[in-house]
Amino acid sequence: MKAGIIGATGYGGVELFRLLNSHPHVKQVILFSSSNAGEEFTSIYPQMDTEQNHRLEELKPEEMKEELDVIFLATPAGVSTQLTPELLGGKAKVIDLSGDLRLKDGSAYTKWYKKESASSAILEKSAYGLPEWNKEAIQSADLIANPGCFPTAALLGLGPLVSEGIVDPSSIIIDAKTGVSGAGKNPGAITHFAHLQENFQIYKVNQHQHIPEIEQQLTEWSPETVPVTFSTHLVPMTRGIMATIYLTLKENQTLEELKSYYESCYANEPFVRLRKEGQFPGTKDVYGSNYCDIGITLDPRTNRVTVVAVIDNLMKGAASQAVQNMNLLFQYEEKTGLPDLPVYP
Amino acid sequence: MKAGIIGATGYGGVELFRLLNSHPHVKQVILFSSSNAGEEFTSIYPQMDTEQNHRLEELKPEEMKEELDVIFLATPAGVSTQLTPELLGGKAKVIDLSGDLRLKDGSAYTKWYKKESASSAILEKSAYGLPEWNKEAIQSADLIANPGCFPTAALLGLGPLVSEGIVDPSSIIIDAKTGVSGAGKNPGAITHFAHLQENFQIYKVNQHQHIPEIEQQLTEWSPETVPVTFSTHLVPMTRGIMATIYLTLKENQTLEELKSYYESCYANEPFVRLRKEGQFPGTKDVYGSNYCDIGITLDPRTNRVTVVAVIDNLMKGAASQAVQNMNLLFQYEEKTGLPDLPVYP
Amino acid sequence: MKAGIIGATGYGGVELFRLLNSHPHVKQVILFSSSNAGEEFTSIYPQMDTEQNHRLEELKPEEMKEELDVIFLATPAGVSTQLTPELLGGKAKVIDLSGDLRLKDGSAYTKWYKKESASSAILEKSAYGLPEWNKEAIQSADLIANPGCFPTAALLGLGPLVSEGIVDPSSIIIDAKTGVSGAGKNPGAITHFAHLQENFQIYKVNQHQHIPEIEQQLTEWSPETVPVTFSTHLVPMTRGIMATIYLTLKENQTLEELKSYYESCYANEPFVRLRKEGQFPGTKDVYGSNYCDIGITLDPRTNRVTVVAVIDNLMKGAASQAVQNMNLLFQYEEKTGLPDLPVYP
Amino acid sequence: MKAGIIGATGYGGVELFRLLNSHPHVKQVILFSSSNAGEEFTSIYPQMDTEQNHRLEELKPEEMKEELDVIFLATPAGVSTQLTPELLGGKAKVIDLSGDLRLKDGSAYTKWYKKESASSAILEKSAYGLPEWNKEAIQSADLIANPGCFPTAALLGLGPLVSEGIVDPSSIIIDAKTGVSGAGKNPGAITHFAHLQENFQIYKVNQHQHIPEIEQQLTEWSPETVPVTFSTHLVPMTRGIMATIYLTLKENQTLEELKSYYESCYANEPFVRLRKEGQFPGTKDVYGSNYCDIGITLDPRTNRVTVVAVIDNLMKGAASQAVQNMNLLFQYEEKTGLPDLPVYP
Repeated sequence: MKAGIIGATGYGGVELFRLLNSHPHVKQVILFSSSNAGEEFTSIYPQMDTEQNHRLEELKPEEMKEELDVIFLATPAGVSTQLTPELLGGKAKVIDLSGDLRLKDGSAYTKWYKKESASSAILEKSAYGLPEWNKEAIQSADLIANPGCFPTAALLGLGPLVSEGIVDPSSIIIDAKTGVSGAGKNPGAITHFAHLQENFQIYKVNQHQHIPEIEQQLTEWSPETVPVTFSTHLVPMTRGIMATIYLTLKENQTLEELKSYYESCYANEPFVRLRKEGQFPGTKDVYGSNYCDIGITLDPRTNRVTVVAVIDNLMKGAASQAVQNMNLLFQYEEKTGLPDLPVYP
Repeated sequence: MKAGIIGATGYGGVELFRLLNSHPHVKQVILFSSSNAGEEFTSIYPQMDTEQNHRLEELKPEEMKEELDVIFLATPAGVSTQLTPELLGGKAKVIDLSGDLRLKDGSAYTKWYKKESASSAILEKSAYGLPEWNKEAIQSADLIANPGCFPTAALLGLGPLVSEGIVDPSSIIIDAKTGVSGAGKNPGAITHFAHLQENFQIYKVNQHQHIPEIEQQLTEWSPETVPVTFSTHLVPMTRGIMATIYLTLKENQTLEELKSYYESCYANEPFVRLRKEGQFPGTKDVYGSNYCDIGITLDPRTNRVTVVAVIDNLMKGAASQAVQNMNLLFQYEEKTGLPDLPVYP
Repeated sequence: MKAGIIGATGYGGVELFRLLNSHPHVKQVILFSSSNAGEEFTSIYPQMDTEQNHRLEELKPEEMKEELDVIFLATPAGVSTQLTPELLGGKAKVIDLSGDLRLKDGSAYTKWYKKESASSAILEKSAYGLPEWNKEAIQSADLIANPGCFPTAALLGLGPLVSEGIVDPSSIIIDAKTGVSGAGKNPGAITHFAHLQENFQIYKVNQHQHIPEIEQQLTEWSPETVPVTFSTHLVPMTRGIMATIYLTLKENQTLEELKSYYESCYANEPFVRLRKEGQFPGTKDVYGSNYCDIGITLDPRTNRVTVVAVIDNLMKGAASQAVQNMNLLFQYEEKTGLPDLPVYP
Repeated sequence: MKAGIIGATGYGGVELFRLLNSHPHVKQVILFSSSNAGEEFTSIYPQMDTEQNHRLEELKPEEMKEELDVIFLATPAGVSTQLTPELLGGKAKVIDLSGDLRLKDGSAYTKWYKKESASSAILEKSAYGLPEWNKEAIQSADLIANPGCFPTAALLGLGPLVSEGIVDPSSIIIDAKTGVSGAGKNPGAITHFAHLQENFQIYKVNQHQHIPEIEQQLTEWSPETVPVTFSTHLVPMTRGIMATIYLTLKENQTLEELKSYYESCYANEPFVRLRKEGQFPGTKDVYGSNYCDIGITLDPRTNRVTVVAVIDNLMKGAASQAVQNMNLLFQYEEKTGLPDLPVYP
């Protein structure tokens, strides 16, 4: 099997490369880059030196779609909108890690991303690649919209309760925290070490482009869905997302009942792990892995539920979830080529 | 003026020492430690070597209360309950940085701290040392209960709205994040660098002992107060607290109206700084200072208000707020001996 | 194949578990712990939750040596001295990650480790597990003394020049830097996050117990060896070692000549990567991998050579080198079960 | 007294602002910036909001040199070469924090900085601002070349031995480590948090522009001086420099003798602190202060001396040393306006 990565020099791309490079069913990984075509990959990432080194190739969609089995787009917003139409229709299946193809409503994309959206034909074609909730659609698709990092954590945390119809829809608050690798490889004032170290910051308050993605899936689970409150914070660390989710129930339920929804939803999901009562995961518990770890509690003083979901933003929030989707697309065992345990400490 | 610090070897104590050492009205700082009496302070903190070095003294309350002008208690929970009665009644005024004397209701203390509370006589005597809201009581007191770090941030953020009576009391959620110095100097699994680095964690969910302290003050501002949701997270950094506060209003108000409450509350407060519309502080903005920086916004999609308040937990959350209280107790200008600007970067 | 880990709850042990858990030739990993026998491994490491969970077993050397194919000791100094005699003589091969069996001279062990040494019979039996320089002895051994983290970096950096006999032996200075995970899992003042963050420290100056291990191997390469200068520094990070090595040559040589020694030494070594002229590795370049990356230069102003060698102290400096040794012991391909690429960013 | 800062928006500039803002003899601080003239300082540094806010002024050398008492240049290499001639000759004294005026030999500047040097008239005029070794020249100068961060640490560590004439000049190796704020405020690949975190790196091996500055002062102390080996490493932290210095003595001396040279050199220096035998400072011991802490030992195995000197690169390595120089220039007590204790933890 031959895999291609477009945008291989970004953080999502290099993480994809690491995973595909050791995937047992991937014979060859070909790296594409519009800005660095012709260069050795190791001239940009000397640490990615391995026996079989790679040159960054120029993008030739016509050839790529026939010669490759799967193409990953790890590109900034707007690129997939342009490229996807040219990459489809041949042999290759396409997995897009950007936000371009996630929103079924093109006008919502334009509103939140301030860019022209893909055509509705393309948007309809794409399956939302959250395997724990959309496995069938993924398995039969040619085009996957890999979920955003925040929506992955938030939705895996909210799904069992919202899909059950027991949540007061106006009560949902998602207080999210992320490591800085989510901001990408390009240096800027916000990612400068001296600024970020010892600095916990909030950003894009009520304005993050992942909001409509979260609400789209919530609406699918529950038509009562109304706008949610979603805040994003920057943690002085490289990897990891925690979504601390607050909500109230329509009617009182016990913690045991609540936990049972999670257990039945995720009983057969190899990448969701539920914590015992009174225990909550930290982001390092999933570092370098494809896991989403979840803890839940109910406060008897306020009757409010707190759900905590953590992922590695570059893995379950991007690259390893894309490989999980590839496994599903090609009928491989879902865990193939994905690490079984996180890196600790 | 002679100042004494009991518990000088903890993080709060050493920070107090640094501040008092350069306070223009403090001639002498005497350090007390029950566990290390007799040792040089620099044998524990070699970096605190200065021209006039200090030996850790044994506690002699009878003498201390006559010879010292002010005594700071920077001790673990339970110690002040024992010591305060012996320290009062002489010349010295007492500022307690622990949680022992903050709750007027001794049974609440026992419930949340799992320890015997101070006598109601002592609890009544103590003034809650949040200068921005309790200046008069502080100025005429002999005993100050210096606020907890989380309550300082949460209450300065909530005060202008709650005291105005415009907040739906059941809607308040405080999602708090802190650097690890708040956990104190004793090493443990949770403060091990290899565990904490790249690890964002949640802890004491709905169970933090600062909850009743927050609610006590909220109740003072608004009798409608009901239990709030309060979550604490550990950030891989040393100093800094951010409280991200969510609430809904009883009736719609504009952001301008909301901001005006903050402006009038804090117009004459030298240590509260309000951010311009659309701007929010990060914890590094107050690093090493006594400031509380606050940002606020209103989400038109959800009608929910978000307030962000940051402090340095060892400064405004402990030592520098204690010095601010000392300044008030002794009628010094409130900013005396406190840094005018944060350390950056 | 069945593998056992003694001391599974330490940092070396948990990293070994992660690697062995996904090693294609290891059917079963059994975890032993004297202090936590009977507990679930996930009660200590909840993040190590996988489909097949593990209980910590009691140590029964008599049974272990017959039922297991390989036993790893990831224990503090002194334990292997006691246990190894009981573990040998059966089916199991033994790989010791501690410092107990590395020094052939028992009295040197006693001097530097302040503990009784293993018997000379055991010390003679053990092969020093630095595969790049001792492959044959490893392949035919029953007992491996896995190298220390600092010696691994220092020796891989020094080997090509010292074994060539061109180095002035009295000129060697090794300025080493390590992340804090090398200090182990037990919390202490030195590993407290608030103390270590923003703190670069030097420790055990001229007194580190890895000094005799380095000198023993240098002496094997060159009988002219004299004591070296070796300094260790603690970096505010979790993983990674850099050895910056300074030396002068007996006679002038060009940088090209120097590089050619490295190239011929390591041409067939899959885990040593040499950097191009003018380039030097950082510790993150080998994060989570078994690589040792090396850069070298010659200063025309001083005629001094600088060699820079980096490893991940928990991987090539401990667990993954132990697995590399296991692969050699059992005639598996040397890279089996070891990650091909480092984790980045 | 009126002070001006040119280049106020860089890290050196903002730290100078913080110090001058609370200096008891400085009535007014005026900030200049060529790139941001006209903007509020708080639009760039919102955390520097204080009662008396500042607008960034345009540079008008003719007026500045008459109206200001002292002008600090906290500018990139090359700027002071241009500006200094225009700033001298009036009332103002000038303190240059850049490397432009430190090397008396203009051709050395051109060689190492790859820029045209200042005129020899200017270079002769400037006094090298290392107060512990050049106090008299500083006190009578109009123009100060404030030392580089690495030279400050290296020279304070080497001075007592080299000036004594007891060091083998060819043996000196300075292995230096720095936090990232030394690289300045402009973001780049090397300062990206995700790249730097968990990454200890070496850079500019044998090529750092601070080498000739160190050698110039060593030559002044000892005419036997030959080129030294000087390596710089980047530590994942914001502030702090450690210089680990290795050298051999011409003739054997005891550690007590060596220590006595330090004690007599620095007996009256308020900002140099010597550690007791067997103790060494870490960078956090001087965080936010003007101290240089020094530890020293002698290895009986190798007869090699190790000296460890630490500073805060933005303080003693830049801004606070500049203020110390200002104090000397204006006959204020040397410690005026400088913090007495470091920030810890």
